[in-house]
Amino acid sequence: MEKAIVAEILTIGTELLLGHNIDTNSAYIGEQLAEAGIDVYWKTTVGDNEDRIAKALRLALARSEIVVCTGSLGPTEDDVTCRVIARVVGRPLILDQVVLESIRRRFAERGLTMSSNNERQALIPDGAIVLANPRGTAPGLFIRLGDGKVVVAMPGVPSEMRPMLREQVIPRLREGLGVRARIRSRILKTCGITESKLDEAVGDLARSAQNPTIALLAHAGEIHIRLTVKTESEAEGQRFLDDLEARLRERLGDLIFGRDEERLEEVLGRLLLKEKQTVAVAESCTGGLISHRLTNLPGSSAYFICGEVVYSNQAKERLVGVPHELISQYGAVSRPVALAMASGVREAAGTDLALGITGIAGPDGGTAEKPVGLIYIAMASKEGVHCREFRFLGDRDTNKLLASQVALDMLRRHLLSR
Amino acid sequence: MEKAIVAEILTIGTELLLGHNIDTNSAYIGEQLAEAGIDVYWKTTVGDNEDRIAKALRLALARSEIVVCTGSLGPTEDDVTCRVIARVVGRPLILDQVVLESIRRRFAERGLTMSSNNERQALIPDGAIVLANPRGTAPGLFIRLGDGKVVVAMPGVPSEMRPMLREQVIPRLREGLGVRARIRSRILKTCGITESKLDEAVGDLARSAQNPTIALLAHAGEIHIRLTVKTESEAEGQRFLDDLEARLRERLGDLIFGRDEERLEEVLGRLLLKEKQTVAVAESCTGGLISHRLTNLPGSSAYFICGEVVYSNQAKERLVGVPHELISQYGAVSRPVALAMASGVREAAGTDLALGITGIAGPDGGTAEKPVGLIYIAMASKEGVHCREFRFLGDRDTNKLLASQVALDMLRRHLLSR
Repeated sequence: MEKAIVAEILTIGTELLLGHNIDTNSAYIGEQLAEAGIDVYWKTTVGDNEDRIAKALRLALARSEIVVCTGSLGPTEDDVTCRVIARVVGRPLILDQVVLESIRRRFAERGLTMSSNNERQALIPDGAIVLANPRGTAPGLFIRLGDGKVVVAMPGVPSEMRPMLREQVIPRLREGLGVRARIRSRILKTCGITESKLDEAVGDLARSAQNPTIALLAHAGEIHIRLTVKTESEAEGQRFLDDLEARLRERLGDLIFGRDEERLEEVLGRLLLKEKQTVAVAESCTGGLISHRLTNLPGSSAYFICGEVVYSNQAKERLVGVPHELISQYGAVSRPVALAMASGVREAAGTDLALGITGIAGPDGGTAEKPVGLIYIAMASKEGVHCREFRFLGDRDTNKLLASQVALDMLRRHLLSR
Repeated sequence: MEKAIVAEILTIGTELLLGHNIDTNSAYIGEQLAEAGIDVYWKTTVGDNEDRIAKALRLALARSEIVVCTGSLGPTEDDVTCRVIARVVGRPLILDQVVLESIRRRFAERGLTMSSNNERQALIPDGAIVLANPRGTAPGLFIRLGDGKVVVAMPGVPSEMRPMLREQVIPRLREGLGVRARIRSRILKTCGITESKLDEAVGDLARSAQNPTIALLAHAGEIHIRLTVKTESEAEGQRFLDDLEARLRERLGDLIFGRDEERLEEVLGRLLLKEKQTVAVAESCTGGLISHRLTNLPGSSAYFICGEVVYSNQAKERLVGVPHELISQYGAVSRPVALAMASGVREAAGTDLALGITGIAGPDGGTAEKPVGLIYIAMASKEGVHCREFRFLGDRDTNKLLASQVALDMLRRHLLSR
């Protein structure tokens, strides 16, 4: 087993501390390093302050082999990363003629004259490898220190940083450090089970599995199971993941709806296509969200016929034929109305399947008998129509989302059970 | 000048280091602390590793007065934050009966039985103030140490963390520390203008303004103007912001649609209520998104009557009365069909206003004559019906979003011009 190579990410910029920008760079860097087999244990953010950048860099070099910095490499006075790195690693700044020339050319091409501020970007710590930045003016730096440790500095603009990392930094790191192992991960997505029930069902695997490891991640309406494997061989990694996935599927069955980037509506769309089934939707409290999700997929016109957002009682009666008496007897939020909506829209649209959803998304409109979050979801097919009652505890947006999730999942399970 | 109070943010979770989740929490926390007049100099992220969480917490307590932690507070084995904090600050864990009872109640309300994993969430460091979490099971912690320093722990789920921070943490911090200077910011939201046009219109103010400062932030379909002011007096800060807002409004007029958290659909909803106007929508390529956005507001049933997602040609004919000949002559994606959809749904639903949207969201279905991104948006009122043509350049999701944005904005401008 090779020794673990640990990298640390240092993102620099006062705007990150103030929350004006969300730091997406460090997530990207972390992902790329992990895939290259390099572990990240620490991530630090400091503002454009020389003293704190220097402290953070020293600390990082003391506990990690690689330090990847981004930000504060631009042409303005408060872009200080390069100067601080030179000071901390004890290298003088030297004017790099190649860099100077390329900056000058970039300005000339755009018909601009170069300011002395931009000239400062050609001052490079002695012995640093300059990383070309075809998308901007600030070049990156790759510095190998006497003790074998590495300091990398890249600009903070994501469109400049990302290709520089992928094309120039990662290959140099892998080569220089002799890293061979790679990390691969796979996500299995579940819905219809709580996080703690899922932990009871597969927690023993999560605790015993070493390679791949298992982690549970909760999202609104779905819980993801992440499998992560570290191997040198691609084939071996895939086999480890396949084996573990098979064991999880054995326990969880169709609670697992998809893998990796797959969305629930996408899995459902494929099933509808495969089974040659069409669908229509009558929505009240979800207000169009279910139709929106069903039509997020290219080609959804093959199975999605129409959606009716029947918000008013009159619309429920006129558009999907809910009998007036049903609404006056049971109220618009009731099981009989959900059933009538599903049957009504199925008949009117002439589809194989249909959904009817009525409920109280909140925050207003709840009563003791019918509280906020009470939602009825009915599904109609040629076998008949049935309805489930839910009590969601979220805010309005969350309740709409959870109801849409359950409704789409009811269709999915119906199609799987055919 | 009062002494600066420095806070440090510690986000915990291996998924953050691996880049599987983007850390939006720390940006939100940084913003809220800055507005409360509390500086943040350091932000650290570590994985779910007890040893490194403890190291990071000790380091943070050595250099900052306040440490705000998020993440790893859930019910599973690898959620270790609470245990580590107790160890680092030297307080035993005690079973909190109130917390235990509230977790139990939450489960009972949903008809679920509580697992022993969830019971562990009621173990609280001695002397900690428990922060209620009405949106989830894991409570937060607020611990004041003997030396006056503060450790806060909150769950990592943003919808649980954000209100806890705003309502329970910030007020306690401000009170305890006697902070006076505050940063206030205000966001003015525009739509219907590009970032470069906006820069031309107000760039001189952005470059000259010192307090408040101005920054432009581009989002899908809207550009925000952020004004930021730092003052001790609430009244003075508000006056500075009001003055600058007035100057911006003078230049931009109704290009500014809202302020701060206001969403376009919310501004529109208020206008519809005020003008006592009702609306119906016939959507094809936006697939329900416009109805979804119009119903994201509590009380939207007062103005939103119905939405029809007429995806198939038959649905366009049957539900909103688009003449068959129009579709065969001009195609479903055409100006005449959009006009007929708007008029048809207005008549059928009996509303004051109506929208009709048809287009090609992509990525498939485009031709040389009718490319992906071509979208027609028609609006009908008692004055008549008109239609605008757009060519959006985004992917499917973005095109749907941009079309919904323009459509809602057409309604807004119509109501403003009445």
